[in-house]
Amino acid sequence: MTDTDAAALSDQDAVLIDRYWRAANYLSVGQIYLLDNPLLKEPLAAEHIKPRLLGHWGTTPGLNFIYAHLNRVIRQRATDVLYICGPGHGGPGMVANTWLEGTYSEIYPLIGDDEDGIRRLFRQFSFPGGIPSHAAPETPGSIHEGGELGYALVHAYGAAFDNPDLVVACVIGDGEAETGPLAASWHGNSFLDPVHDGAVLPILHLNGYKIANPTIMGRMDDTALRQLFEGFGYEPFFVEGRDPLPMHRVMATTLDRCFDRIASIQQAARAGEPAGKPRWPLIVLRSPKGWTGPREVDGKKVEGFWRAHQVPIAEARENEAHRVLLEEWMRGYKLDELFDIDGRLLPELRALVPRGDKRMGATPYANGGRLRRALKRPDWHRFAVDVPCPGGAIAESTRSAGEYLAEVLRLNEEARNFRVMGPDETNSNRLNAVFDVTNRAWMEPIEPYDDHLAPGGRVMEVLSEHLCQGWLEGYTLTGRHGLFNCYEAFVHIVDSMFNQHAKWLKVSRELDWRAAVPSFNYLLSSHVWRQDHNGFSHQDPGFIDHVVNKKADVVRVYLPPDANTLLRTIDHCLGTHNRINVIVAGKQPAPQWLTSQQAEIHCAAGIGIWEWAGTDSDGAEPDVVMACAGDVPTLETIAAVDLLRQHVPELKIRVVNVVDLMTLQPHEEHPHGLTDADFDALFTRSKPVIFAFHGYPWLIHRLTYRRTNHHNIHVRGFKEEGTTTTPFDMVVMNDLDRFHLAMDVIARVPGLTGTASHAKQAFRDKLIEHKLYVCRKGQDMPEIRDWTWPYQTAAEAGD
Amino acid sequence: MTDTDAAALSDQDAVLIDRYWRAANYLSVGQIYLLDNPLLKEPLAAEHIKPRLLGHWGTTPGLNFIYAHLNRVIRQRATDVLYICGPGHGGPGMVANTWLEGTYSEIYPLIGDDEDGIRRLFRQFSFPGGIPSHAAPETPGSIHEGGELGYALVHAYGAAFDNPDLVVACVIGDGEAETGPLAASWHGNSFLDPVHDGAVLPILHLNGYKIANPTIMGRMDDTALRQLFEGFGYEPFFVEGRDPLPMHRVMATTLDRCFDRIASIQQAARAGEPAGKPRWPLIVLRSPKGWTGPREVDGKKVEGFWRAHQVPIAEARENEAHRVLLEEWMRGYKLDELFDIDGRLLPELRALVPRGDKRMGATPYANGGRLRRALKRPDWHRFAVDVPCPGGAIAESTRSAGEYLAEVLRLNEEARNFRVMGPDETNSNRLNAVFDVTNRAWMEPIEPYDDHLAPGGRVMEVLSEHLCQGWLEGYTLTGRHGLFNCYEAFVHIVDSMFNQHAKWLKVSRELDWRAAVPSFNYLLSSHVWRQDHNGFSHQDPGFIDHVVNKKADVVRVYLPPDANTLLRTIDHCLGTHNRINVIVAGKQPAPQWLTSQQAEIHCAAGIGIWEWAGTDSDGAEPDVVMACAGDVPTLETIAAVDLLRQHVPELKIRVVNVVDLMTLQPHEEHPHGLTDADFDALFTRSKPVIFAFHGYPWLIHRLTYRRTNHHNIHVRGFKEEGTTTTPFDMVVMNDLDRFHLAMDVIARVPGLTGTASHAKQAFRDKLIEHKLYVCRKGQDMPEIRDWTWPYQTAAEAGD
Repeated sequence: MTDTDAAALSDQDAVLIDRYWRAANYLSVGQIYLLDNPLLKEPLAAEHIKPRLLGHWGTTPGLNFIYAHLNRVIRQRATDVLYICGPGHGGPGMVANTWLEGTYSEIYPLIGDDEDGIRRLFRQFSFPGGIPSHAAPETPGSIHEGGELGYALVHAYGAAFDNPDLVVACVIGDGEAETGPLAASWHGNSFLDPVHDGAVLPILHLNGYKIANPTIMGRMDDTALRQLFEGFGYEPFFVEGRDPLPMHRVMATTLDRCFDRIASIQQAARAGEPAGKPRWPLIVLRSPKGWTGPREVDGKKVEGFWRAHQVPIAEARENEAHRVLLEEWMRGYKLDELFDIDGRLLPELRALVPRGDKRMGATPYANGGRLRRALKRPDWHRFAVDVPCPGGAIAESTRSAGEYLAEVLRLNEEARNFRVMGPDETNSNRLNAVFDVTNRAWMEPIEPYDDHLAPGGRVMEVLSEHLCQGWLEGYTLTGRHGLFNCYEAFVHIVDSMFNQHAKWLKVSRELDWRAAVPSFNYLLSSHVWRQDHNGFSHQDPGFIDHVVNKKADVVRVYLPPDANTLLRTIDHCLGTHNRINVIVAGKQPAPQWLTSQQAEIHCAAGIGIWEWAGTDSDGAEPDVVMACAGDVPTLETIAAVDLLRQHVPELKIRVVNVVDLMTLQPHEEHPHGLTDADFDALFTRSKPVIFAFHGYPWLIHRLTYRRTNHHNIHVRGFKEEGTTTTPFDMVVMNDLDRFHLAMDVIARVPGLTGTASHAKQAFRDKLIEHKLYVCRKGQDMPEIRDWTWPYQTAAEAGD
Repeated sequence: MTDTDAAALSDQDAVLIDRYWRAANYLSVGQIYLLDNPLLKEPLAAEHIKPRLLGHWGTTPGLNFIYAHLNRVIRQRATDVLYICGPGHGGPGMVANTWLEGTYSEIYPLIGDDEDGIRRLFRQFSFPGGIPSHAAPETPGSIHEGGELGYALVHAYGAAFDNPDLVVACVIGDGEAETGPLAASWHGNSFLDPVHDGAVLPILHLNGYKIANPTIMGRMDDTALRQLFEGFGYEPFFVEGRDPLPMHRVMATTLDRCFDRIASIQQAARAGEPAGKPRWPLIVLRSPKGWTGPREVDGKKVEGFWRAHQVPIAEARENEAHRVLLEEWMRGYKLDELFDIDGRLLPELRALVPRGDKRMGATPYANGGRLRRALKRPDWHRFAVDVPCPGGAIAESTRSAGEYLAEVLRLNEEARNFRVMGPDETNSNRLNAVFDVTNRAWMEPIEPYDDHLAPGGRVMEVLSEHLCQGWLEGYTLTGRHGLFNCYEAFVHIVDSMFNQHAKWLKVSRELDWRAAVPSFNYLLSSHVWRQDHNGFSHQDPGFIDHVVNKKADVVRVYLPPDANTLLRTIDHCLGTHNRINVIVAGKQPAPQWLTSQQAEIHCAAGIGIWEWAGTDSDGAEPDVVMACAGDVPTLETIAAVDLLRQHVPELKIRVVNVVDLMTLQPHEEHPHGLTDADFDALFTRSKPVIFAFHGYPWLIHRLTYRRTNHHNIHVRGFKEEGTTTTPFDMVVMNDLDRFHLAMDVIARVPGLTGTASHAKQAFRDKLIEHKLYVCRKGQDMPEIRDWTWPYQTAAEAGD
């Protein structure tokens, strides 16, 4: 560091910023400990201290330090900065800083900017009826919770895409750095385009410890860290120490350098200079855990050790010696240099804070609904498959969807507010029409023979479901739109991220000041029934079970049976907000059932009788209801009706198709749920129902167990039987095929004649014949015969 | 590379190894394409070619290359090597090599070592009734499937722990390297002890492409890769090229160097030289995707590009020009230099293969049940909590479990076949007694003030659920035992890994030759009801919903209500094999119900009537059944009975407690399921059942919907309501508290007198009183009063 560099901060400014930092630290400690006496105007007494001490001190002073220094940069450069607080447990720091800058009191007027406000601020923290101990939806300036660790950097990149004027300062704890998703996130720089995207400034905060252990990176030396991050393509800067004033000077200088680097990278790229992947700056900040807190308590090391992780001084209410230590600690921040007699931040410190929406707690980037612009959507009917009669066309559902998505990309090209994410499966899922309009985002070298790779491409492909999910979360939480296409089985990789996002949305919806953000849309293809070629490890329809555990307000599950219903469903989902929409649809050539007009009506209802498919056209109550949800179950149901029509012509069959799974739930439990009267009108009150379902059968029972006719509902679905086999054999293995379904009908409809039992025998014979074709391992394999229409057996590349 | 180095392989040996490699490549192509004419004795005709072409060629020649070279090293050094095939899609390679070395035919005698065997080998691949296209349980020598990518390296480390004589050669594709779990796995070297553990040799196979995209690492230059892996603490070696003979020489030399490095690291460490974290070798192998395959097809680049990923020449059955190309390609391997006229591998090539169990397809490390030694378990009653009467003691359940686990560690110290994994939560989950016996494994620098860190420690703590899960999978699949303790909410992070492991076990159980491996045991603590302090993001009981989707043979879920039942459950689970056991138990001080004798009886049954808790001691049928599963629901149920006993004394209540959740399922669906008669005897055929459940309520409905009395079962559980509040408020928010339960009873039992409605009003008043204590955000916060016995409100560090 040269003298010139050090000039980033005058001595006077260093002292000022230190005072601001002390104020933030004081307010952080106060939140953890105090019920009352917020400015220590009286000696600290037991009754001033919370009976239950909660919160995470260890990471907080470092978070406050970074926040204070970013404030300076923002004021000087008028930059928009979004602060991602990876160590979300450092909630007290985010709350303290947003209070200091005034946003907290603006959003929550009861928490004023004076002594009474401070008292309430302290009291509410991690308190019944109060606020969580993490950065949470309730926290101004946050799009990131951080209770479950791993997603800070991927959220940061998601926020930076297509926000060219934004710098996302992303603090990553060294605990979080050990997680898989975070470890993969460093590669975000291979996708970030300096022309159209903003910048991410990762700040790896090494305070050395997790809850009860040192961290791996905390114990790595600077040489190793430098190698590692240079290997990842960054330019690392180190800020290390414990003594506040020198640390302020180094941090200010370093931030200036980093922001200069960012500016020069962007200027060069935007001026059209050939860049390749820029070497973006990254800061490694080594500071003691629990910095400025007690060095020792009861003779045990605290500052700079894991004992500082949460509450460094325990039992401060009960233990007088501890209380004295706490009071010394808090008074050590020198309150008279921070607040006036009324508890207001002193004017010279308030002057350190940016103004208006430039404040990190107030930035609209952290309340993305404020920036949301409706997506332009074409008329989906333009992409509809022509269906002259039910079953009269064969099409790949997702291929039409790809054409529709290409048009969405085209219409919103200028707005740059729509992206498609996928783990290298966009082609495989047959959405390749999007490449007529855009490219895959790519900042690594590009070879002449490469296919649709370019900086600024709007399709993001990386072999990590975690990155796809996290990027799209960051992208939608900052107000933009998108779709994540994924193999159905492997979307379980992000179960936990889905959980956290659903929880975030649930709480956000309860906060008036949070504007609605675009929905998170999943398109799950390459689903369980058509992973016959990849085998058992690729066969799992359980994500929707996981999804429906979440709050009804937030989640939607759709199972469109063909191309036109898929188009209508995607179009609908892209117009919604504050939700998580899950669409499951096949990509293989399959029969088409509904015209676009029929699809419109059917999808609007979400469920309905397919009169053309059944045999009860006279309007009387049927003998049996055959229900289906999902493309393959729908096909098998219709084939089963066909068999029954031939073999047991007297049978009156009603076919009910379900697109919107939530219609099955009670109306009181889900806004899309049918009333009991409507449900009974479809499923009857007493007739057998044979339900062919895409997923695990018990999900249907779970959704319908309160319905009148539930005891008559007999569900076939995936029962965890699968291997590498034919598509038809997949349904046979799980008793979901046309013959099993037809036999189920015959078994459950009372009073059928002898023709029915003959038919049953004929179906059983068909199944035996089928089994003969699928021989056991090691024996001779026969040819596959072509009686499994309409399943295609030709493999296509890229599955 | 110097001349001396090159001498690892004579010219003659290079040619021999090349011929062996060609044989493996030929057999790989044959599996993808051929139905018949396996040795091309006739010109290739359409009918010789499979009608559906499946399989992944791109990665396979590289996998074969590595396999062939490892064979040489094994023969020369008599080392045990386990081959982890990260690109599991390269199944044809693993199958080809294990056939060449003879293990395939030994395990599957129908697939002989001659022409007919080759024909069957080809035919069965990715064929109905045949074998999957990935390395799978069916594949000899594999403990790793690799359909879902990300877990190769973490499995490798898990296999290497406590196997000091083993080298795990772990091939990592550059696609897989983009995943989060893989990215975090590089840090395994911070935990691997050269004294007691074996070695992991990562082989990063850069063939440059995924399905339809280049890979990030494939486009990084050697300088960046070297920096990256040196940063991670490895010593990288590069093997790069396309020309086979020079590549054989470099690979041989490099492998010799790596094995030399491994030997010298281990010798030094085992001789007691102070080591620190060794710099283990790592190989970066750059070879073309689809190496030795067609360079172009239809004028489009194939070799060295993503078009080689799966089937490089499509429609070879239908398209004659393609068929000619295929035949040229296959004949290019020069069959007469590989096989004799009968299709047997030529003797000079067979001589290149190791013998007996040294063959990688035959190594017992890949069939871990063969190495399984029963875990020594102490008498768990020794650790039992003294319970003078139900509710007569307060204890932390997991603390006793920790004492039991410490003794397990002690008893098996010499065998070194038991480990405890956890994401930095072993203390937090109150299992800290284990540190009386062992340490945390740690190879990074250790400071004097550190707490129980040491190389060779038997507790593995890293802030990554993925690593904990993957290490324990690798550890148990190689025949050793363990337990993974985790926060309940965050175990969803490994949902997908659980899935894949459950699928692996399901298929393995069907294979006679696979010996049973120890079960995978989860202990989920810090559960939903006691995350009142950490808030909503930490509250999720849905993992068990996910688990019960898997095959009944494989999964078990236990909800022990107190310390003694937890002890008995853990002890039982540690004695099982081929299963996944999930135990959910609290860590907070809580009332104890059963003596160790009672716990033994109760857990053996898995479910039972707690006569002492109910009011129907006269043996008659009760008015109502109050069922409970989980520690907090059990407490609330008992408190509710207490209230009802006081307020509605005439009510006959039966209390049923469920430890083993699987007892609720029909007997036909799960081996632990009660018969309907037994279920009816417990739950009655017609009385109301108020079921207080630990998880989402619909799981109970799902498990019981076929039972006689299902329509009377009314379940309370977590309905996704939570925040930072008191423990008691958590149950109130979800209607699971004593007052709601008591009101439920009154509402559902017909014919109650006026005292009951008075009681209901009293309970409602209590809830209103409670709500007054938990005020809404921003308003004044009251003190917490101490009327929510016996929930403790004192926070302890480390939660």
